[in-house]
Amino acid sequence: MTTKLETEREERACDGALVRAFSFLGKRWNGVILGTLMDGPASFSELRRGVAGISDSVLSERLTELAAAGLVARTVDPGPPVAVGYALTATGDALIPALRELTTWSAQNLSA
Amino acid sequence: MTTKLETEREERACDGALVRAFSFLGKRWNGVILGTLMDGPASFSELRRGVAGISDSVLSERLTELAAAGLVARTVDPGPPVAVGYALTATGDALIPALRELTTWSAQNLSA
Repeated sequence: MTTKLETEREERACDGALVRAFSFLGKRWNGVILGTLMDGPASFSELRRGVAGISDSVLSERLTELAAAGLVARTVDPGPPVAVGYALTATGDALIPALRELTTWSAQNLSA
Repeated sequence: MTTKLETEREERACDGALVRAFSFLGKRWNGVILGTLMDGPASFSELRRGVAGISDSVLSERLTELAAAGLVARTVDPGPPVAVGYALTATGDALIPALRELTTWSAQNLSA
């Protein structure tokens, strides 16, 4: 039997947009790749060195996914020498304030 | 051979605190449980209904982990009736600005 008190209680739920954010950024490496690009474009090999533990094939797959989601763009500087890189798009840039808040919170609250 | 240009380039890396944040919040359900508690304490059954797809045993495990990490506390209202609930600690509350930034970004940039 459901009591009056129970039926009157508001249902609790996480905002759907936040659920989507965690589903996307929680996928292994996605957040760290974006965090590595926060300070500007990087080449594939810079990203591979910057994202500890990632393999070439997984980094390549993640960059393709992040590009498909509109957060990262492949850039080509015709040079010479030709230089291919990866950079945040405007959508990716828009995530930076949230990443900075997360970084500050983590530095203050999660032990290293 | 490493060229002069390459050796002079700054190494790129994601901030270690941000890596820890994603490692922690990226673990399935953790972020969504915290997001569900953003608006105030909730009982176990409210959380189970609010976090779509989670089982009792996994929710229980995650709440124990979040409590061990100092983000969530179990609260007991002696009543009557006795009411057990879960609430964000001060450390958990400190994450709210980051969660709000993420929610706003997701609402504007990730399709539903």
